[in-house]
Amino acid sequence: MTRGIIYIATSLDGFVAREDGGLDWLMKLDTEGDDMGFEDLMASIDGLVMGRGSYEAVAGFDDWPYQKPVIVLSRSLAAEDIPERLRDKVLLSRESPQALMQRLEAEGWKAAYIDGGLVVQSFLREGLIDEMTLARVPVLLGAGKALFGPLNGDVDFIHTGTKSFKSGLILSHYLVSK
Amino acid sequence: MTRGIIYIATSLDGFVAREDGGLDWLMKLDTEGDDMGFEDLMASIDGLVMGRGSYEAVAGFDDWPYQKPVIVLSRSLAAEDIPERLRDKVLLSRESPQALMQRLEAEGWKAAYIDGGLVVQSFLREGLIDEMTLARVPVLLGAGKALFGPLNGDVDFIHTGTKSFKSGLILSHYLVSK
Repeated sequence: MTRGIIYIATSLDGFVAREDGGLDWLMKLDTEGDDMGFEDLMASIDGLVMGRGSYEAVAGFDDWPYQKPVIVLSRSLAAEDIPERLRDKVLLSRESPQALMQRLEAEGWKAAYIDGGLVVQSFLREGLIDEMTLARVPVLLGAGKALFGPLNGDVDFIHTGTKSFKSGLILSHYLVSK
Repeated sequence: MTRGIIYIATSLDGFVAREDGGLDWLMKLDTEGDDMGFEDLMASIDGLVMGRGSYEAVAGFDDWPYQKPVIVLSRSLAAEDIPERLRDKVLLSRESPQALMQRLEAEGWKAAYIDGGLVVQSFLREGLIDEMTLARVPVLLGAGKALFGPLNGDVDFIHTGTKSFKSGLILSHYLVSK
């Protein structure tokens, strides 16, 4: 099966964004010159899978940041909701996580970057995550959008390495123990 | 003011125990030979502050593990609820976190180990935490008793060091940025 890979930053209390989606607490970090492995990750994947919320946040940027295909899981978005400039970059899907990953495997995808809180949660629940890089930002927010949510059982990980940076960010890499 | 120090282990999704208080996920780690700094911490503090839940969990062990005084914050426990064998080790208090830390300061305590999810949350909210060591256990539980909770605003930390262990446990030390 296509490998599902998480690479995401959270506050120490596990939030990926404030309630209103705010990322100021993340953006204020001075990470210039830090090699956080993001380019290696992007080089290693065949494409990205995200939910509507993450897609809309990224589509609001001046420049589309991804060179690889992006699959947006949404039951509400239609093809005409995707702006012209993004139609060769963004693919909509209403598939279940399992069906999507089976199709991607059949299409030759070795690895997919799974992004966004709710999509990450559903892929974890379905056992579709193989690898996780967690960046911990040295702040407690007290509230916000949580990365993790309910599961059907424990998910055990094997820790393969941790780096820390002068910004106070701690980057830990794990493999899912299957 | 007496320094408030947190030293606690959580799952990757931020739980300190399962819903039923279970710690099997923590206990199954093989940490033999790992210096996780706990003895240094215990040597550096004047005593511990915990809630009723943590006290009752520890009081259920065959041996009382602490050499230093333990203050149990509880509005429901009375002196006669403390077993005879613990009466010279455990002190009950109904003080607010702020009032307690002021009294301890007056009594010459330099540092107190603040333990237990709800007590940690209230001390964080009141700005009474100075230092935090977080041990991250490589498992997602999906549900349980959360370490962190609502705050009145962001709490920023300065990262001072991280160690990882063969068990997969990552130990990070932070100072509260005040």
